[in-house]
Amino acid sequence: MAEAAQLTEAVRGFLAAGGKRLRPLLCVLGWAAAGGRGDTSPVFRVAASLEMFHAFALIHDDVMDRSETRRGRPTLQHTLTAAHAHGTADAEEVGASAALLVGDLVFAWSCRLLHTAGLREDRLSAVLSLVDDMRSEVMYGQFLDLVAGGRSGADVEAAVRIARHKTASYTIEYPLRIGAALADAPTTLHRVLSEFGRPLGEAFQLRDDLLGVFGDPDCTGKPVVDDLRAGKHTALLALALQRADPGQRAALDAVVGDPSFTEDDASRVRGIFAATGARDTVEQMISDRYAQAVRALERVPFPPAAAEAMRGLADAVVARTT
Amino acid sequence: MAEAAQLTEAVRGFLAAGGKRLRPLLCVLGWAAAGGRGDTSPVFRVAASLEMFHAFALIHDDVMDRSETRRGRPTLQHTLTAAHAHGTADAEEVGASAALLVGDLVFAWSCRLLHTAGLREDRLSAVLSLVDDMRSEVMYGQFLDLVAGGRSGADVEAAVRIARHKTASYTIEYPLRIGAALADAPTTLHRVLSEFGRPLGEAFQLRDDLLGVFGDPDCTGKPVVDDLRAGKHTALLALALQRADPGQRAALDAVVGDPSFTEDDASRVRGIFAATGARDTVEQMISDRYAQAVRALERVPFPPAAAEAMRGLADAVVARTT
Repeated sequence: MAEAAQLTEAVRGFLAAGGKRLRPLLCVLGWAAAGGRGDTSPVFRVAASLEMFHAFALIHDDVMDRSETRRGRPTLQHTLTAAHAHGTADAEEVGASAALLVGDLVFAWSCRLLHTAGLREDRLSAVLSLVDDMRSEVMYGQFLDLVAGGRSGADVEAAVRIARHKTASYTIEYPLRIGAALADAPTTLHRVLSEFGRPLGEAFQLRDDLLGVFGDPDCTGKPVVDDLRAGKHTALLALALQRADPGQRAALDAVVGDPSFTEDDASRVRGIFAATGARDTVEQMISDRYAQAVRALERVPFPPAAAEAMRGLADAVVARTT
Repeated sequence: MAEAAQLTEAVRGFLAAGGKRLRPLLCVLGWAAAGGRGDTSPVFRVAASLEMFHAFALIHDDVMDRSETRRGRPTLQHTLTAAHAHGTADAEEVGASAALLVGDLVFAWSCRLLHTAGLREDRLSAVLSLVDDMRSEVMYGQFLDLVAGGRSGADVEAAVRIARHKTASYTIEYPLRIGAALADAPTTLHRVLSEFGRPLGEAFQLRDDLLGVFGDPDCTGKPVVDDLRAGKHTALLALALQRADPGQRAALDAVVGDPSFTEDDASRVRGIFAATGARDTVEQMISDRYAQAVRALERVPFPPAAAEAMRGLADAVVARTT
C-alpha cells in the first residue's frame, strides 16, 4: 500500500540520516564490559531497539519544537507536511499529526525489536525492567524541562537536575547497564557502570549546551541560534544569569527566548557567556565529571579491551565537536 | 516534587473520568473463555495495561484534534494549558507539548504494567507478541485515517478498511486474544475469538459512526457536530455521498469538514443520511456483522458463563447508546 511504503520510507530516511549511534554502541560496550561472549545477534537487536527508541524521542521533540531541520535534513514533520499538502490550508497541522503518529509507531517498533531479540526469558525480564526505568526517566525529564522553561532562570541546580533526568541517565548509564544485563552482570558491576555513566552523561549534556552556543553548525547539524532562540534552560545560561551585571542581565533577558533571535544577538550572548566566566565554569564542570567517571573505571577489573573502549568513550564525550 | 504530582494527578483524573473499560473487560473475558482459573491478579494487571494504553491513544488523539472536551470534562491538553498559562502567549503550545509528553509517559507506563504483571515468562512472550501486533494495527490505522482524510470521499470499502485497522481489531479481537493467551489458549481458540471479535469490532465502529451523528451528546459525552465538523471519514458518510443526488451532494460538500459547522448544518446532514438510505444501510451492516459474530460462538464449546457474557457483549455493542 502506498501509505505503508510512504511511512516506512520516511522512518528509514530518518534513521539512515546519521546521528552518533551512541546508545547502541554503549549497549554493546556494556555487554563486553560484563564479559559477554557468544552469539551477538540478540545484543545487536537490543542495541538497535535503543536507537529506534531514540528516533521516537527525536521525532516527538521535533514535533514539539516545530523544528524544520534535524541532522542537516528536513525533519520528518516537514517531509510529511510537504507530502500532504494537497493545496489545503491545514497541511502543516496534518504534517504535525502524521509525525506524532509516526513517532508513536517508532516507539512501538522499538518495543517489538526488543521483544523479538531472541533473549533468554529471564534476561528479557531483567532488560525490560531497566528499559522501563530509562523511559520514565527521559520522559519525566522532558516534562520537567518543558514546564520549567523560562521559569527557573538562574537556578544552576535545577538545570543540572533536569539534564540528569532528561539526558544523563538516558544517554550513557542505561544503555551500558542494559548491555551488561544481557551478559547477566552482577549488582556490583551495575553499580560501577552507574558511577561511570552518570557523571559522564552529565558531562555529555554540558558539552551539548556549550556546542549549542559555541559549536560549529556545519558539525552539529543544527543552527547555533536554535537553543538560545528557544530559551533552552541550561546550566550555562543559569550561570551567566547568576553572574551577570545589570547591563548583561538586561541584554540576556531581552534576547534569549525571543522568536526573532538573530546571529548578531548570538554574538552578544556568546560575549556575555565568556565575560561572566560561565563558559569556563561549565568547562570545569565537564572536567570534574570526566575525572569522576574515569576513577570509577578503576573499581573493578573490566576486560582490558572494554576498559580501553570506555576510557576512549569518556574522552570522546568531553572533547566532541558534534 | 510539584511537577511530578501535577503529572500523576492529571493522568489519574483522566483515567478516573470514566469510559467504557471495554478492553480490560474483554481481556478478562478472553481469559475466562479460554478456561482460565486461579490467581486473577496477573490477569487484572494485563487488563489494566490495556486501559492505560487506550488512555495514551486518546490523549494523543486529543492533541491531534485539539479537542477541548473528552468524557464530558476538559481534555488533558486543556487542563495542562490552563496550568501553564503564566500569562505567556504560548501557553497553548506548552499545553499541547505537555499533553504529548504525558501521552508518551502513559504509553511507557502501560508497558511497565504489563512487564510487572507477574506473568510466567513464556506467557509474557506470547502476550508481548499479541500486544505488539495490536499496537501496530491501531497506529497504522490512525495514520491511514489521517492521510486519507478528505480524500477518499465516497469509497465505502476504504472507510471500512481504515476502521478495521484503527478500531475493530484493537477494541475487541486483541483484548480477547490477549486474555486467552494468559490462559494458554490453543490456536483454534484464538481463531474463533478472531472470527467473533473482528465482525463485532466493525459493528462497534459502525455504531460509533452512527452515534457521532445521531447520538445523544448527553450520553456520548461529545458534541454531535464534532465528527461532521472534522469531516471524519466514515462508511456512513461514504454511503451518503455515493447515493446523494446533485443537490444533496453539494449540501454535503459545502458543510462536512467545515470548521464553522453548526447545529443547523447537522440537522440538514442527518436528513440527507436518512433520505439516501445511508443510515439504514449502516444499521444493516451492523446486524450482518452481529449475526456473523454470534455464529462464531457456536464453533467451540466455551465455558457456559463465558459464552453468555460474550453474547451479552455482542448485544451491548450493537445496541449501545454511549
